Amino acid sequence: MSRLTATYLIETPGDPHAAAEALAGEQSSGTFIKIPGETAELKERFAARVESLEPLEDDAGPSLPGAKGVDGPCRRARVRISWSLDNFGFNIPALLATLQGNLYELSQFSGLKLDDFDLPVEYAERFPGPAFGAEGSKRLVGVEPERPMIGTIIKPSVGLTPGATAALVRELAEADIDFIKDDELMVATANSPFEDRVDRVMEVVREHAERTGRKIMVAFNLSGELDEMHRRYDHILAAGGTCAMICVNAIGWPAAREICRRGELAIHAHRAGWGMLTRHPLLGVNFPAFQKIWRLAGVDQLHVNGLANKFWEPDDSVVRSIRSCLEPTLGWKPLLPVVSSGQWGGQAFDTYARTGSTDLLYLAGGGIMAHPAGPGGGVRAIRQAWEAAVRGLDLEAAAREYPEFRQSVETFGKPTA
Amino acid sequence: MSRLTATYLIETPGDPHAAAEALAGEQSSGTFIKIPGETAELKERFAARVESLEPLEDDAGPSLPGAKGVDGPCRRARVRISWSLDNFGFNIPALLATLQGNLYELSQFSGLKLDDFDLPVEYAERFPGPAFGAEGSKRLVGVEPERPMIGTIIKPSVGLTPGATAALVRELAEADIDFIKDDELMVATANSPFEDRVDRVMEVVREHAERTGRKIMVAFNLSGELDEMHRRYDHILAAGGTCAMICVNAIGWPAAREICRRGELAIHAHRAGWGMLTRHPLLGVNFPAFQKIWRLAGVDQLHVNGLANKFWEPDDSVVRSIRSCLEPTLGWKPLLPVVSSGQWGGQAFDTYARTGSTDLLYLAGGGIMAHPAGPGGGVRAIRQAWEAAVRGLDLEAAAREYPEFRQSVETFGKPTA
Repeated sequence: MSRLTATYLIETPGDPHAAAEALAGEQSSGTFIKIPGETAELKERFAARVESLEPLEDDAGPSLPGAKGVDGPCRRARVRISWSLDNFGFNIPALLATLQGNLYELSQFSGLKLDDFDLPVEYAERFPGPAFGAEGSKRLVGVEPERPMIGTIIKPSVGLTPGATAALVRELAEADIDFIKDDELMVATANSPFEDRVDRVMEVVREHAERTGRKIMVAFNLSGELDEMHRRYDHILAAGGTCAMICVNAIGWPAAREICRRGELAIHAHRAGWGMLTRHPLLGVNFPAFQKIWRLAGVDQLHVNGLANKFWEPDDSVVRSIRSCLEPTLGWKPLLPVVSSGQWGGQAFDTYARTGSTDLLYLAGGGIMAHPAGPGGGVRAIRQAWEAAVRGLDLEAAAREYPEFRQSVETFGKPTA
Repeated sequence: MSRLTATYLIETPGDPHAAAEALAGEQSSGTFIKIPGETAELKERFAARVESLEPLEDDAGPSLPGAKGVDGPCRRARVRISWSLDNFGFNIPALLATLQGNLYELSQFSGLKLDDFDLPVEYAERFPGPAFGAEGSKRLVGVEPERPMIGTIIKPSVGLTPGATAALVRELAEADIDFIKDDELMVATANSPFEDRVDRVMEVVREHAERTGRKIMVAFNLSGELDEMHRRYDHILAAGGTCAMICVNAIGWPAAREICRRGELAIHAHRAGWGMLTRHPLLGVNFPAFQKIWRLAGVDQLHVNGLANKFWEPDDSVVRSIRSCLEPTLGWKPLLPVVSSGQWGGQAFDTYARTGSTDLLYLAGGGIMAHPAGPGGGVRAIRQAWEAAVRGLDLEAAAREYPEFRQSVETFGKPTA
């Protein structure tokens, strides 16, 4: 029987080994009083195990309030804990309550973060992973392997009518974009019922496909209650759509799984709320664990922020996220990392240099809409930047060679390479 | 049209007013480039508003990494932001992506926590709230208004067979307990299939009810995928059960709503994972907001930790949580706060003094099982403690008057009053 193994970053005012044992006890068969039936066999079979503990150098803190016995700097370590599949079988909510449950409440810790985990091999058969993933998503739009998929987000996020949204989609289609998405705040507003928006937008997408042979992917945000989400999924399908968007933190794992298992649309997963789970270095979850949870549900595309973004996140963290989406796990298809936030062609060079991948969905807003040559110029500029990056050019050389990209360097500013 | 109003605690290296405006922009119709169709009417209707800003005294930090422009202590404030119902209607995942979405990523903030929110009055008609709530849960077991419901958790958490679980339930039933629950880690293990456990346990509960006229409430943890949860719900109902348990953070809002809206079983909500959402004082969510999200889904009972608990949380925070469960909201039934973690009768005095309520589910483990007079003595001791607290006695006076409670003071230690 194989085991689930998880890695945590811990910080404790006490002995890290004792704290790790407390974690293993709290998250499995641990109990502080002797119970009839609590046999040695039961413990052997169901108790979580501390597999390893590696002290970290940067002792400090306490990072969080409420740890007992704080007296000077706290000690930090990386620990691996394992559980038998016997504890939860193939029940993911039970697995989540095990991996990221009461352990954050333990007063032995002044800091605790789930860094990554490895699923038992038995999961490969039970959970098929993404139906489309990176490669399948690109293929649906006819995007060549050697370049990323290029997309944008409908803005203003909230408030456009279906007609105004469709007009914007027409403009973007004429600019030869690959992908368009709703904002994470936008499902259905008082002036944009979901079905009307899908109908108006897909009319434009279908017309464009008939003319060009290429069907743009539009991620309609169908997040809602279960029955609503299924109805909206049906509506997108009937209108000839290829993609639906869900806010994974807002809908939760079982609902995401329900939607993904239908398998007819690529599922674009937005991580709205992710900051509260990860922004503190010693609380919550790191992205390698997070992406695995949602790949297990079957999402195809997952947001990872972008290099030189407008948010708080440093580039190293974004690079780690992109890599973890593309890493093989249980034979599942890699996820398509969705790169966004303050992106224009300028970040293509570092992004490619640091990830070596064109299996990305590269989202730009202003970088497309505010290009001096219009949205068409904006899309061309991003394609040029990626072509140049893959050819091994740097930003300056690319700007010399490609006119639209040169315009975007002049407009959007400083090189990041 | 009424508005959704949320209160955030913020910390910023810059101007708090500017940071609050950035939050409002990011979470509604904000955009950094002018778009055709972005009219003044659209902004007036859909833009979030900063309603008020109250500077806080305790400037310090930065609490979180990644804020731009940190140079000395950061400024803290409490801000109120409002949105029109037009933005999301009655779609709760969209509301969650609005209240607790990308805002945590903003580099304007070095700290940000959702403290509380007020739902538009229109929600009262659309969402019925808890079907049973505090009073209905107590009534199902026949617990008198003037005392809390008294319960315990099956331990060891994971690993007991259905037969061993049923034997423990029999012992607890004979001790005249009101409520028994599965651990949050326990749904179905290799040696305890869910249905077998329900059958064995409910046989004991039904026999006991026939003999005594009182049906103990057992919260079976049915967390899982949607179809599994529905099947398990049916199974509990068919066996004569009155309650099901869900881990709300692990299953998410739409799945919780699906289960709650069936309305035939009281829903016991475990908050496993809550620590990662709240333990940092300036990141995540505070309990008053959290309980409202789940009351909106329709849960009846929600964990709040306990006074003098074994976890990290200070008593003031626990008291605030209990009060917020009992607070009237939109005419909905109050939630039954589930008090647990290191509880025995000793905390009854402070808990009653600080909340004035007996509408609680008071869970004890060792306080019941390890009582010198056995589990029956343990349950009696807790009832005695609450009777004494309601009568206005203090712990010492109660220990003089009630023999089983005196034994538990001798066994479980220091007064907390």
